[in-house]
Amino acid sequence: MSNYFPTVAAPVAYEGPQSTNPLAFKWYDKDRMVLGKRMEEHLRFASCYWHTFCWNGLDPFGGDTFQRPWHSMTDPMAAAKAKADVAFEFFAKLGAPYYCFHDRDVAPEGATPRESVNNLREMVDILGAKQQATGMKLLWGTANLFSHRRFMSGAATNPNPEIFAMGALQVKEAMDATLKLGGENYVLWGGREGYETLLNTRMGHELDQMGRFLNMVVEYKHKIGFKGTILLEPKPREPSKHQYDFDTATVYGFLCRYGLEKEIKVNIEANHATLSGHSFEHEIATAIDLGIFGSIDMNRGDMQCGWDTDQFPNNIPETALAMYLILKGGGFTTGGLNFDAKVRRQSIDPEDIFHGHIGGMDVSARALLIAEKMITDGKFAQVTEDRYAGWKGSFGQDVLTGKLGLDAVAQRVLDQNVDVQPVSGRQERIENLLNSYI
Amino acid sequence: MSNYFPTVAAPVAYEGPQSTNPLAFKWYDKDRMVLGKRMEEHLRFASCYWHTFCWNGLDPFGGDTFQRPWHSMTDPMAAAKAKADVAFEFFAKLGAPYYCFHDRDVAPEGATPRESVNNLREMVDILGAKQQATGMKLLWGTANLFSHRRFMSGAATNPNPEIFAMGALQVKEAMDATLKLGGENYVLWGGREGYETLLNTRMGHELDQMGRFLNMVVEYKHKIGFKGTILLEPKPREPSKHQYDFDTATVYGFLCRYGLEKEIKVNIEANHATLSGHSFEHEIATAIDLGIFGSIDMNRGDMQCGWDTDQFPNNIPETALAMYLILKGGGFTTGGLNFDAKVRRQSIDPEDIFHGHIGGMDVSARALLIAEKMITDGKFAQVTEDRYAGWKGSFGQDVLTGKLGLDAVAQRVLDQNVDVQPVSGRQERIENLLNSYI
Amino acid sequence: MSNYFPTVAAPVAYEGPQSTNPLAFKWYDKDRMVLGKRMEEHLRFASCYWHTFCWNGLDPFGGDTFQRPWHSMTDPMAAAKAKADVAFEFFAKLGAPYYCFHDRDVAPEGATPRESVNNLREMVDILGAKQQATGMKLLWGTANLFSHRRFMSGAATNPNPEIFAMGALQVKEAMDATLKLGGENYVLWGGREGYETLLNTRMGHELDQMGRFLNMVVEYKHKIGFKGTILLEPKPREPSKHQYDFDTATVYGFLCRYGLEKEIKVNIEANHATLSGHSFEHEIATAIDLGIFGSIDMNRGDMQCGWDTDQFPNNIPETALAMYLILKGGGFTTGGLNFDAKVRRQSIDPEDIFHGHIGGMDVSARALLIAEKMITDGKFAQVTEDRYAGWKGSFGQDVLTGKLGLDAVAQRVLDQNVDVQPVSGRQERIENLLNSYI
Amino acid sequence: MSNYFPTVAAPVAYEGPQSTNPLAFKWYDKDRMVLGKRMEEHLRFASCYWHTFCWNGLDPFGGDTFQRPWHSMTDPMAAAKAKADVAFEFFAKLGAPYYCFHDRDVAPEGATPRESVNNLREMVDILGAKQQATGMKLLWGTANLFSHRRFMSGAATNPNPEIFAMGALQVKEAMDATLKLGGENYVLWGGREGYETLLNTRMGHELDQMGRFLNMVVEYKHKIGFKGTILLEPKPREPSKHQYDFDTATVYGFLCRYGLEKEIKVNIEANHATLSGHSFEHEIATAIDLGIFGSIDMNRGDMQCGWDTDQFPNNIPETALAMYLILKGGGFTTGGLNFDAKVRRQSIDPEDIFHGHIGGMDVSARALLIAEKMITDGKFAQVTEDRYAGWKGSFGQDVLTGKLGLDAVAQRVLDQNVDVQPVSGRQERIENLLNSYI
Repeated sequence: MSNYFPTVAAPVAYEGPQSTNPLAFKWYDKDRMVLGKRMEEHLRFASCYWHTFCWNGLDPFGGDTFQRPWHSMTDPMAAAKAKADVAFEFFAKLGAPYYCFHDRDVAPEGATPRESVNNLREMVDILGAKQQATGMKLLWGTANLFSHRRFMSGAATNPNPEIFAMGALQVKEAMDATLKLGGENYVLWGGREGYETLLNTRMGHELDQMGRFLNMVVEYKHKIGFKGTILLEPKPREPSKHQYDFDTATVYGFLCRYGLEKEIKVNIEANHATLSGHSFEHEIATAIDLGIFGSIDMNRGDMQCGWDTDQFPNNIPETALAMYLILKGGGFTTGGLNFDAKVRRQSIDPEDIFHGHIGGMDVSARALLIAEKMITDGKFAQVTEDRYAGWKGSFGQDVLTGKLGLDAVAQRVLDQNVDVQPVSGRQERIENLLNSYI
Repeated sequence: MSNYFPTVAAPVAYEGPQSTNPLAFKWYDKDRMVLGKRMEEHLRFASCYWHTFCWNGLDPFGGDTFQRPWHSMTDPMAAAKAKADVAFEFFAKLGAPYYCFHDRDVAPEGATPRESVNNLREMVDILGAKQQATGMKLLWGTANLFSHRRFMSGAATNPNPEIFAMGALQVKEAMDATLKLGGENYVLWGGREGYETLLNTRMGHELDQMGRFLNMVVEYKHKIGFKGTILLEPKPREPSKHQYDFDTATVYGFLCRYGLEKEIKVNIEANHATLSGHSFEHEIATAIDLGIFGSIDMNRGDMQCGWDTDQFPNNIPETALAMYLILKGGGFTTGGLNFDAKVRRQSIDPEDIFHGHIGGMDVSARALLIAEKMITDGKFAQVTEDRYAGWKGSFGQDVLTGKLGLDAVAQRVLDQNVDVQPVSGRQERIENLLNSYI
Repeated sequence: MSNYFPTVAAPVAYEGPQSTNPLAFKWYDKDRMVLGKRMEEHLRFASCYWHTFCWNGLDPFGGDTFQRPWHSMTDPMAAAKAKADVAFEFFAKLGAPYYCFHDRDVAPEGATPRESVNNLREMVDILGAKQQATGMKLLWGTANLFSHRRFMSGAATNPNPEIFAMGALQVKEAMDATLKLGGENYVLWGGREGYETLLNTRMGHELDQMGRFLNMVVEYKHKIGFKGTILLEPKPREPSKHQYDFDTATVYGFLCRYGLEKEIKVNIEANHATLSGHSFEHEIATAIDLGIFGSIDMNRGDMQCGWDTDQFPNNIPETALAMYLILKGGGFTTGGLNFDAKVRRQSIDPEDIFHGHIGGMDVSARALLIAEKMITDGKFAQVTEDRYAGWKGSFGQDVLTGKLGLDAVAQRVLDQNVDVQPVSGRQERIENLLNSYI
Repeated sequence: MSNYFPTVAAPVAYEGPQSTNPLAFKWYDKDRMVLGKRMEEHLRFASCYWHTFCWNGLDPFGGDTFQRPWHSMTDPMAAAKAKADVAFEFFAKLGAPYYCFHDRDVAPEGATPRESVNNLREMVDILGAKQQATGMKLLWGTANLFSHRRFMSGAATNPNPEIFAMGALQVKEAMDATLKLGGENYVLWGGREGYETLLNTRMGHELDQMGRFLNMVVEYKHKIGFKGTILLEPKPREPSKHQYDFDTATVYGFLCRYGLEKEIKVNIEANHATLSGHSFEHEIATAIDLGIFGSIDMNRGDMQCGWDTDQFPNNIPETALAMYLILKGGGFTTGGLNFDAKVRRQSIDPEDIFHGHIGGMDVSARALLIAEKMITDGKFAQVTEDRYAGWKGSFGQDVLTGKLGLDAVAQRVLDQNVDVQPVSGRQERIENLLNSYI
């Protein structure tokens, strides 16, 4: 049995806001009822395998700072098993109900496609047994189609169809693994599905390739009876200079173009949102309004840094706003709140991984409680109810339902000599109201 | 007859690259044949009314620097007429074949809707006569639904349907004016169609309003027999914190959602592209690949400034790349190359307007000549032809046409033990090739 | 007596966190003791004249939304007096102890320099009487050297020395006014002291001009016996493409170059900090560490917008961090916390100005209380005390005091075969600690 | 003898602009005379060791794409020697006169400090011999104080003085190596000299540490008789969230604070300039005007990407503007033009390294020729001469030399009733002039 975290002897417990124990939850009280559901059911927290157990602290300017023992083991499958032991020790002690992984996070690439497939299948059996033993569940699985050099010019969008095929093999196997492990969603993030320069790229052709790839994924999902949701994860750039899944609105247009808007939803990451020039809450609201909201990666960026810093959330009001929009939109169904987050590369103690997750879970729980207040007292709902009331009248309805054309509407203005006064948007008053709940 | 530009005695002439006359074209030789068409027909240059004749040099921190005489005239219609005189003096001397305007650029808002309509109609007659006299043509008309305080919370997306209606009146009249003046397109830019805070905004409702508004526009276009193209102009933000027409891909998704993707195209502005986190050429390529490329506003931003600086283009290689993509995509049909550009607020001499336009036209002409070389010698086309050759084979075709599913493709990799080596993207070599044409 | 704010009948009162009265303070309890001083003495709140009373809602794409009565008055001095009446009605009702103004905010430009001077002097007498009547104090005065077209190419850095001279006159008079009104600081913000293009700019010459100008200001300060602090306000750009007072570190270098680092401090604005690529807390810490911290403008930007949005602060944890650094650095001396903030242009009701200020004051008060806890329990201080402990040893001291040279230090590593292990930076744990105080 | 580049049989030759040979120079004609010096003497090109020979194509999301043979060799010193062979094969074939390296680029870290020192010394002898054999020269040496995990919290600014000492050892040895190899400058880039969070950082203390470190470097330089220039390389962030050497102006203030402004200059990188919110030409002009211009890293970023992309320059007008400012400032003395540039990670063929460098050298050569024209015809000089002429008059001189105080200047405005009209900045006309030289 792994004991990589000896300073965390027992599972992390809820001790309330007054606790000064850095290894206790102050706000995440999983059985507390919030708007008719347990906190745990609302938040559906997941921890990610890659940042937490695969990353070694490397950045573009420096190497391994963490020195995890499994990174220096010479037998890749033995390392994968040692890593899995530590991962489930961590999961069991943390108490988030879900986890997420890429195929290559849990099982090493082999010397041949067949060997890679076998490695993954062997590890899936091990993960399955560990899920059984701990009660952990899989929020989503995915395939890593961006690290290997063969994918340097894309996977689904590669100029070479044989590389497309190798990506297809990985996705098929990762979908099988997800199904077997009871995963509730399957995610595709296309970090190399984009371009470096338009001068050597046929963007239209690549979009068609990606459209076909995703249709193959959807067809296969139905074929194998996977009941979870297929999710695309938007990101504007990095590693590619430009990625096709730039943001939620772009993904929506892409889905419409390839007939997939009923089949695929989005997994929205806070850091990807800000890199694309949006707020996190904008991306959430967009996905909800377009009917493609699926799941979130609750990891923030640094507004002074132009790359993906993948930090645990720590800003209470910003997180509350995101949570409010999610609740107002009906909350998660198959999706959940994954921490695609990593501790800073200077946070080299194993225990630091707990601090990152505990902080992120507490901030999210606190955000949920604020959102509960915002919804319960109804003042925010009233603001928009009042503001758009005019559209409920007969004229507004005639416009929206198409009874009146442009010229009819125009003529009415002339006939009635309309001159309406605008009304205050009251933004400051509303923002103060939000702060009153914190 | 207006003589606001006494230092520009005669129409600006082409004098060739060796000329040192700052008031001559060095590269724009309108009758020069390029790939089978006259340069003038390729470039379809337009000058804009608003920045050139309406803006007084004001910025958020300072007032009128230009002191155009018509800005201090007390009778608004007299000022409008004086401004029109100067505008057509300028157009005639510059020699770009097209111009563009908003309703409120050419005619003042009146005290009542009826008076506003009458003001515009009166000015349209005057503009028509001036077009006749000078041979100038209208590239596109549009309506200003963002400057008046009634539109502070949007026009089509206003929470108040009466304000929607006042916007509808303006658009209807501006479409009538465009039709009457032989305009080749009609543009909608929604600077206030967005939000300041999600806390008081029903984004989904506003998108439905906008979808309805645009359907009304399309229906009216057909009703009156306008043969031009309806164009949306994407911009991510400014003046609104967030605008719904964020970029080309977002507009495409919106058009699909409201059944408009066959009816509406985009007018892409270089500065709006860079503000949205894209390159200008990315936006052009996206529009072409999605089948919604319409027209361009060829005015650059300043990459150190986070707002719309609307400068005349002056970077030759960047402009060449944009022009190459346009030509490769088939060139303009009803669209053209509008300068939605303004001289700096320190460029207070009337003559400076000529320098801005001459520079922009020369850079664009030079870009066209570079693009001609890129297309004629075929090396760039060959790069992508070679790179994507694999997709022409039977396996590639079987994938694209849907003959093979995910599992079949995956099985093939295992059966054939595929392991392809990636090939160099050769970006540096291709970029050097581009420079060899300059 | 002015009654522009009839919905705010009495001065805004402190009612505590449970109050649901939007026109009451929930956290700003001016007489509450915090670390040995009254809250009011810590925070030294000021309201600004320009955004609050001079701005009409105009932005680059639209006009006056506020329609303040004094903006449509035809006699400029009568308008100035009406505006002053409303300003002091507001100040008295709000209860912040300070205000700030530019010369041209309070008195109109005249037809001649003499007339401008007289206008200001007349208004200063009126303001003095109103200060007397209300108990209001002046945090700082300043001169507007950026709005008039004569300053379009800079004031102190203008290519024309006569324009430099006109700026000098305004500053001299504004300093006199500040002295007369008991102002505690004098601020210079150089929005046009920068350039649009290096092609027509002699940057070195302009820096010398600005160095001379500031030396003249300092000399004059001593000459007239002004005891307040001279403050420069950094901003990276806007309105100029590039401004010389880019950020605090840049200003420090400039002050050293012109012998002013003991005479001038900085007024740091949150929004200017983020526009320059820094966090607000970075700018504060830099100023404190360089010994030039003076005062702050507590108005945030919008991280999705690349321009100065000048919004009231509303993010509690971010404001707390700024306040913690200020307190740790010793708090304000002559400086204070000015709201160089404006309500959104859709917030058109007079009452909205109160909501903006009340929210900003409450957030700042709350931040102060959080900072108090951070300082009182000493855990943050302990983190850095422990982390840098090694430098207190003899080797560390020998290095810092210059006893050891590069080769001696290097030799010691070889001799002692030094190989130290790095220790965790514990960022996540510390960030969680911060949240535990909120 | 190495033959890693078999497709480049002979040294790259100048073939002129009409050549279609991708492996020939079209513009870099090293013996061509430009303003009295040979092109080679003006440009002083250097190739960098790290990106060219040490980087394997890794990015934060994917691994080795290049598969250079020396990266898979198991004996580190054998690998270092094989790498050196290839490096000098490349240098000899390319024909740039200089190269640059970090200590760890050319020699591996050993198991102990002594072993690391010995490794470097052994490799320096080898490099010296290769310089002798090929005629290559060293533009600058430097030490890598950012890749090893011990430096994760900084080197000179580390909270632990023992780590400071280990950095000192590396710098001392790297300075010795640079002296021995005839290096013309010594560079310090502090990628980890900054912070991740202010909550655990004593910025003032760290600045003092860095000030002391640099004084030790300067003292040691004089002690060993190194005649080259010590250079700091500014960069705002990445890898650290915030770096102390943010930009040129910040470095200048730092140098003043620690008495180093006569001893240390800057090495300016184009990509670092744009990441800090400046243009490359701004940073060059600032350094020249502050008297600390030293050398440049001529590698551009991608304006859509928020990280250091380190691409070869390819934009002719932008490069020309930089070169114009350098020439106008007197050109390089000990400094030169280093390509701290890497080919894209998809450019996996060895030959691609040549394409990157050839393109960069040709663009720079072309920029030099444009700059020559700009200087020779004197029109740009005339623009500023005219614009600032007023300052040569007696009033301007009296202001600048301090004869007149603020009140005297103010009084003169009143006495003379000054009212000057601003004059046009003529930016568009000047920008057109620049394009006329391309």
